[in-house]
Amino acid sequence: MRRKHVFVLLLMIALSPAAPRAQSRKSIAEKLGFASDAKLLIVHADDVGMTHAVNAATIKALESGSVNSASIMVPCPWFPEIADYAKTHTDADFGLHLTLTAERVYYRWGPVAPRDQVPSLVDENGYFRHDWTAGTHIERRDAEREIRAQIERAYAMGIRPTHLDSHQYRLYQTGKELFDVLVRVAHEKRVPFFVVREWFADHPYLEAGLGPDDIVIDHTVTIDPGVPPEKWAEFYGTAIRNLQPGVTEFVIHVAFADEEMKAATRERDTWGAAWRQRDFDFFSGAQFRELLQQEKIHLVTWRQLSHAQ
Amino acid sequence: MRRKHVFVLLLMIALSPAAPRAQSRKSIAEKLGFASDAKLLIVHADDVGMTHAVNAATIKALESGSVNSASIMVPCPWFPEIADYAKTHTDADFGLHLTLTAERVYYRWGPVAPRDQVPSLVDENGYFRHDWTAGTHIERRDAEREIRAQIERAYAMGIRPTHLDSHQYRLYQTGKELFDVLVRVAHEKRVPFFVVREWFADHPYLEAGLGPDDIVIDHTVTIDPGVPPEKWAEFYGTAIRNLQPGVTEFVIHVAFADEEMKAATRERDTWGAAWRQRDFDFFSGAQFRELLQQEKIHLVTWRQLSHAQ
Repeated sequence: MRRKHVFVLLLMIALSPAAPRAQSRKSIAEKLGFASDAKLLIVHADDVGMTHAVNAATIKALESGSVNSASIMVPCPWFPEIADYAKTHTDADFGLHLTLTAERVYYRWGPVAPRDQVPSLVDENGYFRHDWTAGTHIERRDAEREIRAQIERAYAMGIRPTHLDSHQYRLYQTGKELFDVLVRVAHEKRVPFFVVREWFADHPYLEAGLGPDDIVIDHTVTIDPGVPPEKWAEFYGTAIRNLQPGVTEFVIHVAFADEEMKAATRERDTWGAAWRQRDFDFFSGAQFRELLQQEKIHLVTWRQLSHAQ
Repeated sequence: MRRKHVFVLLLMIALSPAAPRAQSRKSIAEKLGFASDAKLLIVHADDVGMTHAVNAATIKALESGSVNSASIMVPCPWFPEIADYAKTHTDADFGLHLTLTAERVYYRWGPVAPRDQVPSLVDENGYFRHDWTAGTHIERRDAEREIRAQIERAYAMGIRPTHLDSHQYRLYQTGKELFDVLVRVAHEKRVPFFVVREWFADHPYLEAGLGPDDIVIDHTVTIDPGVPPEKWAEFYGTAIRNLQPGVTEFVIHVAFADEEMKAATRERDTWGAAWRQRDFDFFSGAQFRELLQQEKIHLVTWRQLSHAQ
């Protein structure tokens, strides 16, 4: 039965003229009532729920309007805190940051599904694997069970996600099989998911895996370890001044660099406490707001994209 | 096979003259080379691993000598941090604080065993139950599976526990069945466990469940919500001045009252951030050290008790 479904889905994908369809219809901007060359931006904070310091900074950034969308890690210990917030702030644009890894050393988490049902995802101590290497085989079924369990816990605890995405891009970068799991579950739950047109060249299975009504983000920007701390504002400033027409998602990581966050990330600086404090500081600052005005950039949320679609 | 073991164990317990044996042999104090009326004290910090703030305060208190023993919650998110510390500080007197509940609201944890194997321990979202009420039925097998899983993870991650005890006293107060699980597993692993002679009157099954070589602590002191914050030092001061001969364990809860700890415990003040900061402050302070000297109290660890036995 399941095989038959997969076959039918693959057939549908094979028969659907994926590439030309985007050009033949109204753009997202036009559907939202903007000019066809409008510059639309989602300022998206990842990793909500990971620590209290991430939750507190994300809530502050959302409430001050500097961040307008975010996604939540259901397996993490501070998930109940953000679930409680989401339940009482139903306008907030929260998605689920589907999580299959626990990349820290001193602070860890494991699957929501019973771990004996997702053996390829867990390490010898029962946490999610710290990393996936070329030799790691992730069972498609384990990934599917686990993301279903995360979505179910989120719904059970009162979250109505506006979108899905994938922690550390694992569901995009690992191959067709895992991306197809994301698409299948997202379609079934009728929740849009993050995917970017710019990624199609490197990973053709992404485009091939999409259905005719899936939202495709045009561009994405995320800062990486190549940018030294003192160039943070310059990097984002340049990205904003060079923003192209269409929908761009800035994937950022905010937190307060307090004792908890410093301890949770102390084994390396990348995506660490100071990194996340810099993201918080830039996107909460006046410079960012001025640049948006100056460059005539419109903030949009996943909820808006979803309604337009 | 397992049933046979249980039967033999029960038979041994039934045949062992538990009550008279303590009087007929050397006291722990004497075995440790102290006078028979010496006042021995374990200053024991519970809940290590619960948060980073608990870990940091416990480590500081252990290193300054004001706390000399502690026990670790394996299912908690910050367990890896304290496991790493324990591995590199093998003199530290760490036990395992066997945990079957997740009593907080915004910050939660669940079982180490696959949760479908311990269904009576988990709530509808897969965390440990927030609380056990009169109507809660905990399956003995689930409790045993879970505490075995916690001990296995602790060993696998490099901890060699000097003792076992039970978070929120659940394995002592819930009835004979769960206490017998603790005793059986502790005997099998050859690790001493916390049990107090003063408890026998209220819970006769505790005494009945012991083996002939089990260590029995004479007295225990723990502060409770009836003590107002401004009376904290007075409560402990009185307890120290009134300390009786034999072995007493002070069960305390230390943490730094930082953002993480305040958020993790914000739904109630009991055993909250300020409570734990007060415990840290009293036991790190000069008054405590002076009282110990003045009252001729000797600090002992679980490791020392174990070697004496």
